[in-house]
Amino acid sequence: MKEVRIGIIGTGVMGTDHARKFAGGIPGARLTALQDFDAARAASLAQELNATALAEADALIAHPEVDAVLICSPDATHAALGLKAIAAGKPVLIEKPPAAERREAEAILRAEMAAGRRLVQVGYMRRFDPGYAEMRRVLASGEVGAPLFLHCQHRNATSASYLTSELIIANSAGHEFDAARFLLGEEIATATVISPPTPQKAPGRQPQFIVLQSVSGTVVDIEVFTDARYGYDVRAELVGEEGTVALRPGPPTTLRQAARDGTVVPQDWRPRFNDAYRLQFERWVASILTGDRNEGSGAWDGYMTMLVTDACLKAWRSGQRVEVEQPERPAFYR
Amino acid sequence: MKEVRIGIIGTGVMGTDHARKFAGGIPGARLTALQDFDAARAASLAQELNATALAEADALIAHPEVDAVLICSPDATHAALGLKAIAAGKPVLIEKPPAAERREAEAILRAEMAAGRRLVQVGYMRRFDPGYAEMRRVLASGEVGAPLFLHCQHRNATSASYLTSELIIANSAGHEFDAARFLLGEEIATATVISPPTPQKAPGRQPQFIVLQSVSGTVVDIEVFTDARYGYDVRAELVGEEGTVALRPGPPTTLRQAARDGTVVPQDWRPRFNDAYRLQFERWVASILTGDRNEGSGAWDGYMTMLVTDACLKAWRSGQRVEVEQPERPAFYR
Amino acid sequence: MKEVRIGIIGTGVMGTDHARKFAGGIPGARLTALQDFDAARAASLAQELNATALAEADALIAHPEVDAVLICSPDATHAALGLKAIAAGKPVLIEKPPAAERREAEAILRAEMAAGRRLVQVGYMRRFDPGYAEMRRVLASGEVGAPLFLHCQHRNATSASYLTSELIIANSAGHEFDAARFLLGEEIATATVISPPTPQKAPGRQPQFIVLQSVSGTVVDIEVFTDARYGYDVRAELVGEEGTVALRPGPPTTLRQAARDGTVVPQDWRPRFNDAYRLQFERWVASILTGDRNEGSGAWDGYMTMLVTDACLKAWRSGQRVEVEQPERPAFYR
Amino acid sequence: MKEVRIGIIGTGVMGTDHARKFAGGIPGARLTALQDFDAARAASLAQELNATALAEADALIAHPEVDAVLICSPDATHAALGLKAIAAGKPVLIEKPPAAERREAEAILRAEMAAGRRLVQVGYMRRFDPGYAEMRRVLASGEVGAPLFLHCQHRNATSASYLTSELIIANSAGHEFDAARFLLGEEIATATVISPPTPQKAPGRQPQFIVLQSVSGTVVDIEVFTDARYGYDVRAELVGEEGTVALRPGPPTTLRQAARDGTVVPQDWRPRFNDAYRLQFERWVASILTGDRNEGSGAWDGYMTMLVTDACLKAWRSGQRVEVEQPERPAFYR
Repeated sequence: MKEVRIGIIGTGVMGTDHARKFAGGIPGARLTALQDFDAARAASLAQELNATALAEADALIAHPEVDAVLICSPDATHAALGLKAIAAGKPVLIEKPPAAERREAEAILRAEMAAGRRLVQVGYMRRFDPGYAEMRRVLASGEVGAPLFLHCQHRNATSASYLTSELIIANSAGHEFDAARFLLGEEIATATVISPPTPQKAPGRQPQFIVLQSVSGTVVDIEVFTDARYGYDVRAELVGEEGTVALRPGPPTTLRQAARDGTVVPQDWRPRFNDAYRLQFERWVASILTGDRNEGSGAWDGYMTMLVTDACLKAWRSGQRVEVEQPERPAFYR
Repeated sequence: MKEVRIGIIGTGVMGTDHARKFAGGIPGARLTALQDFDAARAASLAQELNATALAEADALIAHPEVDAVLICSPDATHAALGLKAIAAGKPVLIEKPPAAERREAEAILRAEMAAGRRLVQVGYMRRFDPGYAEMRRVLASGEVGAPLFLHCQHRNATSASYLTSELIIANSAGHEFDAARFLLGEEIATATVISPPTPQKAPGRQPQFIVLQSVSGTVVDIEVFTDARYGYDVRAELVGEEGTVALRPGPPTTLRQAARDGTVVPQDWRPRFNDAYRLQFERWVASILTGDRNEGSGAWDGYMTMLVTDACLKAWRSGQRVEVEQPERPAFYR
Repeated sequence: MKEVRIGIIGTGVMGTDHARKFAGGIPGARLTALQDFDAARAASLAQELNATALAEADALIAHPEVDAVLICSPDATHAALGLKAIAAGKPVLIEKPPAAERREAEAILRAEMAAGRRLVQVGYMRRFDPGYAEMRRVLASGEVGAPLFLHCQHRNATSASYLTSELIIANSAGHEFDAARFLLGEEIATATVISPPTPQKAPGRQPQFIVLQSVSGTVVDIEVFTDARYGYDVRAELVGEEGTVALRPGPPTTLRQAARDGTVVPQDWRPRFNDAYRLQFERWVASILTGDRNEGSGAWDGYMTMLVTDACLKAWRSGQRVEVEQPERPAFYR
Repeated sequence: MKEVRIGIIGTGVMGTDHARKFAGGIPGARLTALQDFDAARAASLAQELNATALAEADALIAHPEVDAVLICSPDATHAALGLKAIAAGKPVLIEKPPAAERREAEAILRAEMAAGRRLVQVGYMRRFDPGYAEMRRVLASGEVGAPLFLHCQHRNATSASYLTSELIIANSAGHEFDAARFLLGEEIATATVISPPTPQKAPGRQPQFIVLQSVSGTVVDIEVFTDARYGYDVRAELVGEEGTVALRPGPPTTLRQAARDGTVVPQDWRPRFNDAYRLQFERWVASILTGDRNEGSGAWDGYMTMLVTDACLKAWRSGQRVEVEQPERPAFYR
């Protein structure tokens, strides 16, 4: 294969962003097809980006000019569409979460193992963020020693009215669980959840404070606050026996103006993780072309993150510390 | 009173530092007397600082040229000496912790109430640190909205070999408990403790991760890591509904040298909290002279911090979330 | 044209870096040909990157599978090769400086005007750096008001032994002159040069301090210090009537380790300007494909930067403030 | 002397601030007397601070309960009053500038030499700022190598309507000249001045850009911008052969709020240099009590700073580089 022809299912906010990134140029890739349940929306974007709009997701997956599939449709559809792409033998990048239920995630594992090769990547794009990548490199280098703590903050400026306290754990926190597994290179063993008060301006939901412990004991604490008002802000500090390494996000300039000295905080994830998405797509395409694996999340990662989520939900409901289930990792995923 | 004559009990590391601060000039104060169980040590310092060395603590407390007493002797002696100062009707600043056992702390409360006026201040000096003071001012101003989270890190470069996992909770963490009560202006309701691995270079103890929740629900998480190697580093970020305010400690310069750009981290608490100690003593002396209260910790604060400590120890031993006992606050302490 | 086939002349440090960037994927571009005076070096790189090695620069420029030429050969050859590319009617990106002498720069202007279309881009890649781009955007937005000062520092960790005090002005400072013209959007009127002492470890040359003033009066001061030891560091602060905006370069993480808290400073320009080079190439290729202009330096910019350089050299030799020549800008370059 | 009784001449903004500092407690000092040309103003402050108000400056200087004099009256009166204090044999701290004309400064030198001991300190308080002090310590330590450049910015939020372009050099810049001499430990040899445009909102004056060169060649560049709008901001970066050290001013907290992450910039010098003023007074009083010299500016420093000012004014008027006069330093001032 000299070029990977990309089909995208779902042209909502994320799907449209992603489609524009592919159309704008991801080396080795060409956007060829789009599909959305809102056919007009897909058609309009397809025209703008010089791609073909297809009426049905199945048709996109089956299309001879689609070599690989990017799934950005509603969360509930991710797993079923992912399974179809696997069945078609086509590499598939599934936006997170890869499955809405555990048995779906397990079905993906079985299907991929049956296919006999890695076809699934999950869109936990932070693994490609230069900051997270550098944190991992520093940890591996030994500069900060063995990990003891990982302090994480995940803040959105505002969130949709449908977001509930439960969804903050079940959905928003997923990026953090995957990032913790990625940074620490091991599984999460236990989960504890403590909820602060409900903010006045976001009455429908409580922020959450999640404390995980990895199998070797590293403590991972996660603030998830989806209505932080001042901006979109994702932070992490990894504390090792010899030092700490932390994300230093932010714009490439500082501003001194109106009695403030510092940086401007972005209002959503796009400026913050623009490079992460671009690099995720570049590395995904490169992996398809070369057959080499990349550092992205695979089906197993998506599954384990779901088990962490399940444990957190149980911990939240019970007020107790909960063990994360540890299924045996198949040889295929080692 | 035009001048407060200060007597210091205990001339170890802290007591000597404090004595030098008083000798160097705390407005309205004059260092007159020193006492230590090591009489030669006290005598040598007394000569250097032009004060009188006394053989016994009782004699210092009773001395006619001592108007107020600063207790820096070993922790186990704090409460008994504090009670004697109260009995002598002399204002007393007790280094933290003010008592080694709960009944001692209660005895101090009873004695002070019996004396009918506030005589006790506890040396939780962070309340006078310009950073903590500014965090409190910002919270009160409404600039960051109502508090939801308080993230704290307490790191020493190295710690004494006698320090145990238990003492990290029982002693090192005390400053954090008092600071949380000070910043939030309310009591702590529950405590959870999770312990990360034991660092290779500090085999005798585990760092600790303590999660408190205040009575109104604010989540306070505290990393206590007494062997952080790279330096002495105390941080706190208060997350409110509208924004966050955080400590910005550090030297008044940045250095770019040897491939690093940033600040030099101090190796112990002295440069970090030098101003806090100075201001603590200035405000203590001013309060004695004027009769006005200051923002320092009183006997009640010392007592409640001890109850938080007790709950944390129980939480650590049991692995469970533990409620902090909430005795009724006497009218005297409102 | 659906794809721009790129030929690169010169495969030294810069040329090799650039070739790898094109081979790694610049959307819309394909690296087809390489040439170097060291034929073996070109052949080896060509094999690695799946391109054709050509023996002569003329042959590369004329090659039917080369649509656009990137010139990274020694400085003395830039202009002559650029003229040949213009003569061939092929877009050409010339590494800075575009010409070694003034009459060469003028010849490029005449040739391009004769060709009747913009074919020349000069590799002042900082214009594509997200930091400089953001500074320009902030200035245009009015957030910091009209510009008064532009403070610049240009520091290399070490420099080649052949670098002289004169070359620091004639070559190293060129990026700063172009950046000042780009940020301020106007020409430079005067130049003053003051030289600090010669560093002990770089005895062959003095660092330089250059003060320019733009035609509307903005003061631009530039430190050029090519042996700064601690790392590669390029800074700029634009001071406007209402505030300031400054570069905030640096890695995406901070490190607390070994008594230091801050960032790691890179040792050369590659990590610092990696994105700038990538974006320069992407925008160059996009401009060739679409015919739209980009914000890169053109032949006129290269010429005016040379005149600033000439004025600085005169100012340095004379110790006097020197006026920068202001030739009339041809309509073609407005 | 066991206590230094302080008399203050001038109770305007600065004098009142200073008087409150002394009344609030400078160890070893007691504020005893105040005088102002506005007798009511002096009387009111004297009552508040429990001092004696005197009608005439001469009476204050002569008063038996005044051991040392602090002169905060209008600039034009500094030298004459200073001479009287010297004549009275009393230590005197003169707010900057110590003299309005050169012959006044020379008269002070002669008078002090005639008195046979150091009586004069000049209120260039930055020498006591922890940031400047640390910069000097770092330079002396060799950590950043020999000095090559000193970049300075001096910004006020707004300035009084009477301030002219000339006064910006003659008065505002004085702190910078003294700081440069203090940091570098040597005299200034030459001065060049370049003026950027006049800001729209401060039409009466141009900011200034001053480039000095020390006798050993270090280049000192100084931006003086007294209408910077966003706040009061004083910065300095010293560039040595091995690294750089820079001021890191600012509040002890960072704020993330309203899409900004960083620090709050003060609106005037008081929060910025509060510690510097306090330490200046503490060290002045200590020097009087002990007879030991401190790092403050003396009469010679005030005189040399005046000669730098004179050279800058000439450079500004002529547009030329101007040599700073270098009178021989009397043995008394070595």
